[in-house]
Amino acid sequence: MALAIGVDVGGTKIAAGVVDEWGKIVAQLRQPTPAGSSDEVASTIAAMAQQLADEHGATSIGIGAAGFVDEDRAQVVFAPNLAWRNEPLKARIEQATGIPTVVENDANAAGWAENRFGAAQDARSAVVLTIGTGVGGAIINNNQLVRGANGFAGELGHFIIRPGGRRCGCGLRGCWERYGSGSALVLEARELASVAPHRAERLLELAGGNPLQVQGHHISQAAREGDPAALDCFETLGDWIGRGMAVIDAILDPDVFVLAGGVAEAGDLLREPVLKSFHKRLTAQGYRDAPHVRLATLGNDAGLIGAADLSRVAETA
Amino acid sequence: MALAIGVDVGGTKIAAGVVDEWGKIVAQLRQPTPAGSSDEVASTIAAMAQQLADEHGATSIGIGAAGFVDEDRAQVVFAPNLAWRNEPLKARIEQATGIPTVVENDANAAGWAENRFGAAQDARSAVVLTIGTGVGGAIINNNQLVRGANGFAGELGHFIIRPGGRRCGCGLRGCWERYGSGSALVLEARELASVAPHRAERLLELAGGNPLQVQGHHISQAAREGDPAALDCFETLGDWIGRGMAVIDAILDPDVFVLAGGVAEAGDLLREPVLKSFHKRLTAQGYRDAPHVRLATLGNDAGLIGAADLSRVAETA
Amino acid sequence: MALAIGVDVGGTKIAAGVVDEWGKIVAQLRQPTPAGSSDEVASTIAAMAQQLADEHGATSIGIGAAGFVDEDRAQVVFAPNLAWRNEPLKARIEQATGIPTVVENDANAAGWAENRFGAAQDARSAVVLTIGTGVGGAIINNNQLVRGANGFAGELGHFIIRPGGRRCGCGLRGCWERYGSGSALVLEARELASVAPHRAERLLELAGGNPLQVQGHHISQAAREGDPAALDCFETLGDWIGRGMAVIDAILDPDVFVLAGGVAEAGDLLREPVLKSFHKRLTAQGYRDAPHVRLATLGNDAGLIGAADLSRVAETA
Amino acid sequence: MALAIGVDVGGTKIAAGVVDEWGKIVAQLRQPTPAGSSDEVASTIAAMAQQLADEHGATSIGIGAAGFVDEDRAQVVFAPNLAWRNEPLKARIEQATGIPTVVENDANAAGWAENRFGAAQDARSAVVLTIGTGVGGAIINNNQLVRGANGFAGELGHFIIRPGGRRCGCGLRGCWERYGSGSALVLEARELASVAPHRAERLLELAGGNPLQVQGHHISQAAREGDPAALDCFETLGDWIGRGMAVIDAILDPDVFVLAGGVAEAGDLLREPVLKSFHKRLTAQGYRDAPHVRLATLGNDAGLIGAADLSRVAETA
Repeated sequence: MALAIGVDVGGTKIAAGVVDEWGKIVAQLRQPTPAGSSDEVASTIAAMAQQLADEHGATSIGIGAAGFVDEDRAQVVFAPNLAWRNEPLKARIEQATGIPTVVENDANAAGWAENRFGAAQDARSAVVLTIGTGVGGAIINNNQLVRGANGFAGELGHFIIRPGGRRCGCGLRGCWERYGSGSALVLEARELASVAPHRAERLLELAGGNPLQVQGHHISQAAREGDPAALDCFETLGDWIGRGMAVIDAILDPDVFVLAGGVAEAGDLLREPVLKSFHKRLTAQGYRDAPHVRLATLGNDAGLIGAADLSRVAETA
Repeated sequence: MALAIGVDVGGTKIAAGVVDEWGKIVAQLRQPTPAGSSDEVASTIAAMAQQLADEHGATSIGIGAAGFVDEDRAQVVFAPNLAWRNEPLKARIEQATGIPTVVENDANAAGWAENRFGAAQDARSAVVLTIGTGVGGAIINNNQLVRGANGFAGELGHFIIRPGGRRCGCGLRGCWERYGSGSALVLEARELASVAPHRAERLLELAGGNPLQVQGHHISQAAREGDPAALDCFETLGDWIGRGMAVIDAILDPDVFVLAGGVAEAGDLLREPVLKSFHKRLTAQGYRDAPHVRLATLGNDAGLIGAADLSRVAETA
Repeated sequence: MALAIGVDVGGTKIAAGVVDEWGKIVAQLRQPTPAGSSDEVASTIAAMAQQLADEHGATSIGIGAAGFVDEDRAQVVFAPNLAWRNEPLKARIEQATGIPTVVENDANAAGWAENRFGAAQDARSAVVLTIGTGVGGAIINNNQLVRGANGFAGELGHFIIRPGGRRCGCGLRGCWERYGSGSALVLEARELASVAPHRAERLLELAGGNPLQVQGHHISQAAREGDPAALDCFETLGDWIGRGMAVIDAILDPDVFVLAGGVAEAGDLLREPVLKSFHKRLTAQGYRDAPHVRLATLGNDAGLIGAADLSRVAETA
Repeated sequence: MALAIGVDVGGTKIAAGVVDEWGKIVAQLRQPTPAGSSDEVASTIAAMAQQLADEHGATSIGIGAAGFVDEDRAQVVFAPNLAWRNEPLKARIEQATGIPTVVENDANAAGWAENRFGAAQDARSAVVLTIGTGVGGAIINNNQLVRGANGFAGELGHFIIRPGGRRCGCGLRGCWERYGSGSALVLEARELASVAPHRAERLLELAGGNPLQVQGHHISQAAREGDPAALDCFETLGDWIGRGMAVIDAILDPDVFVLAGGVAEAGDLLREPVLKSFHKRLTAQGYRDAPHVRLATLGNDAGLIGAADLSRVAETA
């Protein structure tokens, strides 16, 4: 039975695990991400992988990292939270462990896992949306990751959905992630609590009375309690997410959309307004089936599982 | 040397040709599309293919048709201009000729040809835009056609770029093809000639004085003469095309965009305003190269060449 | 009993009448507008007014003309359909008839009549929308016409309601009248008939099968018959009119809006969708009454009646 | 020489002054606004007015208050910051002082002062924009205040300029004041500092490193220093203000726009981008003069001066 190691490198912690061919995690380790140099991060990854390999055996290592990964899946070109610039991660880990290694963007890895073992495992083509602070994702076509010329394919948050709209860190205005992300949900709730405090009493109560202190978990809690203001904010968020999904659908026509990432943990609070908005904007209705829209099933493990599996694919390619 | 037959089935004429491995057309036939039953169209295609096969030999047949083609590339599910509904074209042609046959959407076939032998032959990932009455296209990722769950991938004209905008035949409002197509160019010019006739004297002259009679070739002619009103209309068209391309780019990150179709014959009259608009709206500028934007090089032969080549791929798969 | 003469000068005909203090027309004359020089038009007006004055007596003359009128209400600065440029109409008519004369913009005159004797006669502040080929109107505040610095106040059709939208003869894009006028209704219907002919069968039948031949009266007729496509077009028109009215309402807060002009003859076919759209966009709902929205009651006579009455106001001022 | 008393009632302080016929303040008093009942506020106003009347003599009192004032200018129907609901202010003050009193909305009073004695004193028609936390204003036509059916005319901030945009306290989305006010300037700067901190170093420095702590005076200071990020925010603000002014101009065609309120203290930092945006969106350019756009000249005294003057007008009416 072929085991592979998957590593999910985040800004605060590193998770590594041994994954079998069916996407099951056989063993797992966690450590805080070293705050120091990028060298230390690589050493830590190598040590964790080595330990798992020693204990369980493994024929390949896959590493998912938040950042841009080069075409050969060898270097992390740029990782905003990890101080990596052109980091030759594949070479370092292979040198340290002697095990073939591939590097992948973390959202691609997570999306891959959902397609192989999770919510989209029956789909030949899928779009996995990772909705957190921003919007990222993965595009799977014909059971292959679509990576693009610069590895930016699947960085789904940065098409303009609102010309002249909110500024985006990418330099544009009106990018989808400025309207369809967790940050957008928070902006919406703070705005509501600022201009219409009488409508946002529960949100303000949870935020200690200060509209600028409303956080995502306040909104989720209030929404679960049935608070109309919080539900209204989810409605707005879902509307924007659905609009963006309709754009992607018209271009890629996937079998399945998967809603993943922290915001998707809201479940049907998010999925219902997403569907309402999405279905209104589908082209050629009546001439084809609407794609499925599902919640992710692998949660935080998706990145680790996907990275492990991608390393296996590379190995057998 | 492996020869394949390519057939491009249009609403008014059928073109069939023998194509070699380098995309060269060795021999070619043309006939008007029979106006009668869908059977007659199939018989005509079969006869043309048989004749070419008899004269030149061929190991496969590829047929490009304007319409939706099923996943197995065997049936034309729906062809607006050909009265085909679930037409088992592959089976009919194979039965008549004894030669393995595949069916493909015509824009996919043409895009494939540009990727294999034309403007994007150096690209691993390309988006080919067919800009005519509407906007269609083809998406090539990692040298594979992206077809989507229903074969709608690459039907690029139907994402909403202008909420609440012009009505579209697909049932939505504000689809990209209502702003970025030849029809949009004509609408724009007629509008200009209606509300500001003093600015549109040349266009009106070419149209016999009636704003509603302004046609695409009038606009192209006037623009080539340097007429400011016609150039203004191309500027507007290019602006919308560039906006839509930026959306696609953020999602797919291709190496190359190819501008194809009748409207792209305007060349730099179109390409220049497209580039201006496109470059303004690229995400992550400075962190990556902008994709190339090129004019198609294979012209009307692209569909035939691409269909032939796709049949060869199928054969060797 | 004080009688005044009102004259409504249009591009094709001139109507003149004797009007009493209650807005009743006591006698009336009509003539085609002379096609020749602007002098002839002035002479015709003078002759018609003289004849009425001789037969009925009149203490003042008011003339409503489609065009820009100077601050002193003496000259027609510019009249698109009448070849008048800085025409000293007041002086000419006074010289010819010996009767004190004032000149006013025709939409202002018609709006004044609706405020004095028609649909808004109980209102201290009113906005009268003249919805025809374009959108014009009149603003009445505290029972005075609001004329503006250049006499452009009440030219309500030219604020931008759709940035980057349809071109307007005024040089901008997206002006309200490009979306809220009879022309817009026709554009909408032609678009629908072009892109979705199967939904527009009745409209196409009335237009002889050619989408570009759909005219306003076809749409009105089909709508009265209950045709869904025509009603859909009125819905779109009403939506845009309601949006624009909400803008005006937030700025001017009138007691009454009056829907006048040729398109308003559609009655509730227009008024219902207007109200739906308008009420959704009213600021401070619940803190104040929504303004009344009424159909004009004076029809084509409004301009003549209003011009007559305005001349009386001037005389007694 | 006729003297009148003007009172400007704000949420934190009350200013009262004796004003001569030329708009000069002859004497002035200031007191904190009593925090208690609405009765106390009225008593304080009465006492201040009485003292000024005793010392200087005065034939009328005008009171400007932030809130909605009834048609008879006798009651404050609703004052968000003063706990007044249907407060019979005129009656109370007249009872206490024996001097004829009128009540007016404070922005109307301030706008009136600018028209009579300030930046628009040569204008027959003017629009005064009070740009502070929100956007308010006054419309003067033919040297009369346009008050509207409910006294809402001139509450200029609440027409929709951005459909589906930022929520507004008035219940709508996309109101002008959500884009053209000081609050909008702050939102814009916080957004910029959040998503592009490397571009907003000076703003973050002034705000102690926290994007949510950026305040209006930080932006003004940085802009005066030439900081590109702050200037960019003023550019965005000016763009939106100019768009809204173009809407108002198309409807009302005033001689003069006056930029007043706290944000207008930025002077040309604001006026320049406003003009750029405004002039691009003027209808019928070339057929008429653009209205003047001027900075207010009376500053914080405008409300007091205008209220005094309006009381005089009422007295002599």
